[in-house]
Amino acid sequence: MYTIGVDIGGMSVKVGLVDDNGKIISQLRVKTEKTAEEVIVKMVDQINELLKNNSVKLGELRGIGIGCPGAVSSDKGIVEFLPNLGWESVPLVEKLKNYFNTEIKISNDANVAALGEVIYGAAKNYNDCIMFTLGTGVGGGIIIDKKLYEGGHSRGAELGHMTLFLGGKPCTCGRSGCIECYTSATALIGQTKEAMLTDKDSIMWDYVGGDIDKVDGKTAFECSKKGDKTAEKVRDTYIYYLGESILNMLNIFRPDAFILGGGISAQGEYLNERLKAYCEKFDYGYKRAPKTEIITATLGNDAGIIGAAALLR
Amino acid sequence: MYTIGVDIGGMSVKVGLVDDNGKIISQLRVKTEKTAEEVIVKMVDQINELLKNNSVKLGELRGIGIGCPGAVSSDKGIVEFLPNLGWESVPLVEKLKNYFNTEIKISNDANVAALGEVIYGAAKNYNDCIMFTLGTGVGGGIIIDKKLYEGGHSRGAELGHMTLFLGGKPCTCGRSGCIECYTSATALIGQTKEAMLTDKDSIMWDYVGGDIDKVDGKTAFECSKKGDKTAEKVRDTYIYYLGESILNMLNIFRPDAFILGGGISAQGEYLNERLKAYCEKFDYGYKRAPKTEIITATLGNDAGIIGAAALLR
Repeated sequence: MYTIGVDIGGMSVKVGLVDDNGKIISQLRVKTEKTAEEVIVKMVDQINELLKNNSVKLGELRGIGIGCPGAVSSDKGIVEFLPNLGWESVPLVEKLKNYFNTEIKISNDANVAALGEVIYGAAKNYNDCIMFTLGTGVGGGIIIDKKLYEGGHSRGAELGHMTLFLGGKPCTCGRSGCIECYTSATALIGQTKEAMLTDKDSIMWDYVGGDIDKVDGKTAFECSKKGDKTAEKVRDTYIYYLGESILNMLNIFRPDAFILGGGISAQGEYLNERLKAYCEKFDYGYKRAPKTEIITATLGNDAGIIGAAALLR
Repeated sequence: MYTIGVDIGGMSVKVGLVDDNGKIISQLRVKTEKTAEEVIVKMVDQINELLKNNSVKLGELRGIGIGCPGAVSSDKGIVEFLPNLGWESVPLVEKLKNYFNTEIKISNDANVAALGEVIYGAAKNYNDCIMFTLGTGVGGGIIIDKKLYEGGHSRGAELGHMTLFLGGKPCTCGRSGCIECYTSATALIGQTKEAMLTDKDSIMWDYVGGDIDKVDGKTAFECSKKGDKTAEKVRDTYIYYLGESILNMLNIFRPDAFILGGGISAQGEYLNERLKAYCEKFDYGYKRAPKTEIITATLGNDAGIIGAAALLR
């Protein structure tokens, strides 16, 4: 059978037809419109087009899964709050039900990314997993016994918004010192720039062609691979921040695997090995805790569509 | 029917006969012996005595539940590591099975305390709860849908050992800046003493009869009730530490209720009201998150026995 996966993003809405192996058969993408009404109209068009193009009937669908940023009440099918698009209390599932007589499920985008990796991606062989999506912000996903755990009222799992540093950097969530403020790509870029300003001889300057505005989430990692001391310092401090954040999760969940996604995770084993070493060194009860693998997400840009489709499995 | 609840502590082992309403019918207590073997022998004697004294037959038991400090693998029935008593890899359930042909379950003491409150105590009307036991250390318990969640390999839920303050005070767990270092009774006593040393006129000095070694977890709270400014400052800083720790948990679990146990929780509403106000002020997404009640544990000194018995429900 097939499933429709919908990935609502700030820039575009992607709709994909996904088979039972988690492969995207076909996908469409449109610019994200301003209002929820407009987004829904476009989404319905896309889904119908996708079904028609691929000669798939509604009866052949397991259903439609939707991943959406912001605060989502999956049990009620409502997008409670999506600040980037100015949405508040949008009953997305109910609205779509007017067009499609099939099962429709919705969850937060970071949650579906985690579910996708466990059902179809990097973590297929693990039952209990935690995922951090290290992008502009830090999204979190919790999988317990292969099932998505979203917290009470499906409104928890905001793992990026745990205080790591009391009284630290102010966070968009209203508190301060959150994990997100230290481990997001945005945070790493800030840490890299700060370090560069203290060392005019760092090869990071060459790497960005002398333009500090060209610093990205790779700059410090790539230059530390070349032996730049200042870049290595940035890398190690970032490992410390992310390692401590991961240890906090291990002490709660003791998952089989910790999945890293988002831009920073492209560093793969170069990052994972260092994190693993850090976590094993400082693990609970002086190394007596069960071990957790640290792995890289594999669904990449398709995580949104495939993860959303996984909501129907 | 009845259940035997066993509460293994550093000082004493308590064994109780508990009815199906969570009432202790009868209980016995002995000093905790040095070795696991000795503790088991005494425990078996106590259980037999309890059954005999109350004319209860093994067949009338739901089973035996055990709460034990340290790292416990409940799925295997093993106490992995109990530093205070020097235990390592003690197969407690298997050993007891040699004496009693009934169901035997074990879990960490903080876990069973939480379960006890949800099944028989303060949180009977709530499904999803998190509990902090604010004592010498800080224990954590997680209840999801009325069931104990212990993390993978039943080795998670170490909520007291989440970093709240990166690079902060050293913790017994090997890391630093843990919740426990700021919110345990031990921590509050330290904070109180520190504040007293900066203010020789504080009425806290009278409260302890001029002897700083008599400071306990109540000193700052009781003296702030009398309007002592320095005591109020200690109280408010403690509320800040504990409030931030609770908010971290809310962002993950969004429980219906947050249960506070241990010595500090005796402050009841005086503490809870202030925590509630703090948490609502700084709650996720600028107050858009579902509300969580903050309540005081009611099982008190019986929490260990009753909670252990709750493992069989």
